[in-house]
Amino acid sequence: MKSVQFAAALTALAAIASSAHADEGLWTFDNFPAAKAKAALGVDITPAWLARVQAASARLSIGCSSSIVSGSGLLLTNDHCASDCAQAISPKDVDYTRAGFLAAAKADERTCPGLQADILLQITDVTPRMQAAGAGLTGEALVLARGAVGGTIEHEVCGGDRKLHCEVVELYHGGQFKLYKYREYTDVRLVFSPGDQAAFFGGDPDNFNFPRYDLDCAFLRLYEDGQPVATPQRLAWNPAPPTAGQPVLVAGNPGGTFREQTVAELETQRDLTLPLNMTELSELRGRMIRFDEENPANARAADEPLMDLENNYKVFVGRLATLDDADFISAKRKDEAELRARAAAKLGASLGDPWAEVAAAQQAAAGLYVRYRQLEVDPAQQSQLFSYARDLVRAAQERQKPSAQRMPRYSDSQLAVVEKQVLDPAPLQPALEQLILEYWLSKSRELLTADDPDTRLLLGTDSPETLSARLVNGTRLGDAAVRKALWEGGLPAIEASDDPMIRFMLRIDPEARRVRRDYEDRVEGPTARGAAAIAKARFAVWGDSVYPDGTFTLRLSWGAVQGWTWRGKAVAPFTRFAGLYERATGQPPFDLDPRWIAARPRLNPSTIFNFTTTNDIIGGNSGSPVLNAQAQVIGTAFDGNIQSLGGDYGYDPRVNRAVALSAAAITEALQKVYGADALVSELTAR
Amino acid sequence: MKSVQFAAALTALAAIASSAHADEGLWTFDNFPAAKAKAALGVDITPAWLARVQAASARLSIGCSSSIVSGSGLLLTNDHCASDCAQAISPKDVDYTRAGFLAAAKADERTCPGLQADILLQITDVTPRMQAAGAGLTGEALVLARGAVGGTIEHEVCGGDRKLHCEVVELYHGGQFKLYKYREYTDVRLVFSPGDQAAFFGGDPDNFNFPRYDLDCAFLRLYEDGQPVATPQRLAWNPAPPTAGQPVLVAGNPGGTFREQTVAELETQRDLTLPLNMTELSELRGRMIRFDEENPANARAADEPLMDLENNYKVFVGRLATLDDADFISAKRKDEAELRARAAAKLGASLGDPWAEVAAAQQAAAGLYVRYRQLEVDPAQQSQLFSYARDLVRAAQERQKPSAQRMPRYSDSQLAVVEKQVLDPAPLQPALEQLILEYWLSKSRELLTADDPDTRLLLGTDSPETLSARLVNGTRLGDAAVRKALWEGGLPAIEASDDPMIRFMLRIDPEARRVRRDYEDRVEGPTARGAAAIAKARFAVWGDSVYPDGTFTLRLSWGAVQGWTWRGKAVAPFTRFAGLYERATGQPPFDLDPRWIAARPRLNPSTIFNFTTTNDIIGGNSGSPVLNAQAQVIGTAFDGNIQSLGGDYGYDPRVNRAVALSAAAITEALQKVYGADALVSELTAR
Repeated sequence: MKSVQFAAALTALAAIASSAHADEGLWTFDNFPAAKAKAALGVDITPAWLARVQAASARLSIGCSSSIVSGSGLLLTNDHCASDCAQAISPKDVDYTRAGFLAAAKADERTCPGLQADILLQITDVTPRMQAAGAGLTGEALVLARGAVGGTIEHEVCGGDRKLHCEVVELYHGGQFKLYKYREYTDVRLVFSPGDQAAFFGGDPDNFNFPRYDLDCAFLRLYEDGQPVATPQRLAWNPAPPTAGQPVLVAGNPGGTFREQTVAELETQRDLTLPLNMTELSELRGRMIRFDEENPANARAADEPLMDLENNYKVFVGRLATLDDADFISAKRKDEAELRARAAAKLGASLGDPWAEVAAAQQAAAGLYVRYRQLEVDPAQQSQLFSYARDLVRAAQERQKPSAQRMPRYSDSQLAVVEKQVLDPAPLQPALEQLILEYWLSKSRELLTADDPDTRLLLGTDSPETLSARLVNGTRLGDAAVRKALWEGGLPAIEASDDPMIRFMLRIDPEARRVRRDYEDRVEGPTARGAAAIAKARFAVWGDSVYPDGTFTLRLSWGAVQGWTWRGKAVAPFTRFAGLYERATGQPPFDLDPRWIAARPRLNPSTIFNFTTTNDIIGGNSGSPVLNAQAQVIGTAFDGNIQSLGGDYGYDPRVNRAVALSAAAITEALQKVYGADALVSELTAR
Repeated sequence: MKSVQFAAALTALAAIASSAHADEGLWTFDNFPAAKAKAALGVDITPAWLARVQAASARLSIGCSSSIVSGSGLLLTNDHCASDCAQAISPKDVDYTRAGFLAAAKADERTCPGLQADILLQITDVTPRMQAAGAGLTGEALVLARGAVGGTIEHEVCGGDRKLHCEVVELYHGGQFKLYKYREYTDVRLVFSPGDQAAFFGGDPDNFNFPRYDLDCAFLRLYEDGQPVATPQRLAWNPAPPTAGQPVLVAGNPGGTFREQTVAELETQRDLTLPLNMTELSELRGRMIRFDEENPANARAADEPLMDLENNYKVFVGRLATLDDADFISAKRKDEAELRARAAAKLGASLGDPWAEVAAAQQAAAGLYVRYRQLEVDPAQQSQLFSYARDLVRAAQERQKPSAQRMPRYSDSQLAVVEKQVLDPAPLQPALEQLILEYWLSKSRELLTADDPDTRLLLGTDSPETLSARLVNGTRLGDAAVRKALWEGGLPAIEASDDPMIRFMLRIDPEARRVRRDYEDRVEGPTARGAAAIAKARFAVWGDSVYPDGTFTLRLSWGAVQGWTWRGKAVAPFTRFAGLYERATGQPPFDLDPRWIAARPRLNPSTIFNFTTTNDIIGGNSGSPVLNAQAQVIGTAFDGNIQSLGGDYGYDPRVNRAVALSAAAITEALQKVYGADALVSELTAR
């Protein structure tokens, strides 16, 4: 499941891949190395080809990619990119995430709350203005100055036009700044979802694995003024099966990658942050699985959070496996040495030793990360009540200051998003909330020890069990009206509140802020300063002859349909419909959707279902079209193998594979399983 | 909690510490460096001193240590070494592990089922005979030849005398062999246990931490022919409080340490085995915690297994923290380089490159360990039913062969122990069994992937949920009579059985055996060959001027009462009674035993309760006496700080600390909390 978490996308440092040999990767549309692609695959990627694909690629605000596949605004994406929508529009008595959804006619297509689609219109180089704005500045002053100029540039181009969206994107860690101008669509409707029994057949055991048998597709439609948008720039639908070795291109929006990190930073992840996060997620997963099994109500409450948790856990597994690969780390070490030598030759003494700066900051992380994670990073990711309370308290405090001096989350440009998250009505699962808070408190006590002042601050004379129960049972923050009153009442209302969750937050937040500042001052700040110097050196050496790290903006990757070999065993690049039925055991998550059982006699058992390619994709690429050399859609990428998760740090052509669903399978399933003939007609219309 | 798991003790390779600077460590009583101890601490450890302490030290078969503290066979050990006994002798309506136990008179002292105590009588060098037996042999032939001669030697000395117990102990990884002759006592009775609310106050959060406030002591008594054993060799009881800097010695039986491992082996643990085991234990822990919280019956069932699991988990945390310490690993690397240089100078070309052999075998572990763990190592540790089924099936098969050709667990010398484990009636917790089996199956599927032939072998078309339920609900192996019939019926009875657990085991066991052989052939075998060559080289360089790795045999460690400094913060070496009351919150595990609440006015708040010392101890040392220079008992060691867990790999004098309970606190608590005046009189009698 390769959607991107926004937090990751937004905090990703844009920087350059570590060396020149990863040609396959994440190329921007304004700097695509057509000659290299021609040499590698024999395909002609012309400026017209690029323009056509760009115009038919739509970025989804949920952290996914999609493509336009009809003249009436029809978008192809993954089912897991549409499942939030399916859940949100489900009536009380039907769960569309399970049952699937098919609009009988356009009038039945339903708007997905909060979902937006952006189509990239233009990329403009704004490097000189942005660099001039930051000249001579460092640290916070640099960030503020660049932010101000970036805001000015965005406003100049997109102004108050609500149909446009502008972003200044930092590439190569400041080596380039580009203005990305988008056409924005705010009415995106669900047309078809197969439901997760077919889209996520095999569940967590099969996630990030192959062979796979998943119909992980969904169709959405762009609307404007209540009408489907006319999209003559549509890509052609090609239901012919993919063939081994066939050249393929993937257009989409890879989220943050970290290929520029120094070896010292990778070692911190390998030795400190990933192991800690994996054990933490594992214990919480265990508690949630048992909770899920206790009764059907708990299962409904825990299903989605558990799926997210397991997906995140497996991402960590894949990352750690890559970092534990001695060959991978020594290749990184070699790249780093080469860069240092070339940069020293080019820049001389002005280079200094930014690698040592980064390494020293990483050393400091060893003593600070656990506390930072437990007090500042972790809880907000897990508990809805905790998030409400923190946002209410912090927003009330931060709004006392000018925007530029606030925590970034509460700056004017972000505040509307936070407000929406806090005020939107959303169902709350009190029993699950208590489980999460109890776990967090218990793990904090374990990791910090019972004697730590922060443990005492969190717990007082309570235990994790009693405190979590009191907070969840006593708070009224589950009520959107209560949250609204506190939001609008501002700091006086917050300080006068007797809500136990608000009181708890007021008690612990000063310390959480102190811990954050400490981590920023001693780890993140020095690391960022060193990384900026390294990125500058790297750009001086390589320029844009290599691609920049992922930034959740449009990129093109070239590759071929191909399997791989793992520990001496060849993995074939295709699965077929027949394999689905062979794999089915009748037990979740390997139980078949009843419609697929019924359709079996009608389906061609040898139709290619899922396939793997060598394309370099990462979280954010979910829903990307897989294109042939003629820019026809032959499938949609929905996952990678477990080795592809190392793609955060670098692309390994031996084992990194994208996993896609074929247009052949989609077409046949729409016809024979779902009776979606109108949809097939629309896709295949000339 | 520093008892030793037998598996660890028995499989530990006896070998030498990595360098000469860890003088403090695990010295044998026949090679104690008295001059070094005198220089370091100013204490005179004479041959008479050593003989007296050896005669008053008793090794407990549960994996603990103890000392004789009265003339009538009274043993001081830890409560956590006596809690299995307390549980076993509890009547239906009282749980002695919670309520504690105090025998009103000797007639009320109760025999601990299965518990034995061994007092070391004599150490004899048998190196020449053992080395001659193995001359020119390698691999299995070497093991068999040495085993045969060792058995002969043991029989020559201890013969059929059931009051004696002989063991040939391999020290320095074959550099030395010594015969350890013990007086064995098989009737050991419980005299006093405070109960775990006082003995394990602070529970898992405080385990391996300091400050501590635990009365982790228990008293046992040696019996023979129904009478207390006369023990004139008792050590004097000294209830004076320990003082900062005071020289102290700890006599006990440290279990397996791994200080001889190469850097390649340590890296395998750091990067592969420890992280995997920690995430596995974490998820199981999460499931068990939630299970425990569901209802009181589950809590009773899960309490002890959960405590064990959490203790094991924290041991892994401590080990990993040490291996992640860059300074520690680089010191190991330096030691290894020094040894290689010295060994090359001494042995020339005959040395070869055993380090490279070990490193190559460790590389192979990366591809094999997960499967080996899931199929062969893990399940037997967790599920009682699985263990029964495996032992029944394997014993029936192995008994077909001559003893020397069997798996070691089923050789004639071990078979009686296995038989007792299988046939002894023991309560079974079906719900917990199912949880454990379901978890194991689910994690195996995740780690091996759904497509793996071994996953299919385990699950067939079942899910982990359905298979675990069917096995637990269908089996009759919980009934000791059923197990007895299968044990006595041998292979025909096993093969004819329709018990689902037996059928399951017959299905999977050939593959588990194949996986074990594969791991032995490609990882453990080559590692052991390389390690043996390294150990030989090390012994050639250092001889017995350094101490051998722990072997769960009697050792003496010197040190001083001392705190430590961690990340700039000084940790004081003492806690006092007053601190217990300050720390108590009223919530488990920080809730006070009612007797301690009642006794508060009578207790001296400034009495030293727990204290830390620089002694080098490890699992197996639990219950060891802490002695002053006059060999008087001033406390009992019951734990180490979290940094001490790195003691498996090496002793770090900066941070490795033993945690002990003072004789002062024991004496005062016996008098004022438990009214155990007779016990105090016995302890303090001249």
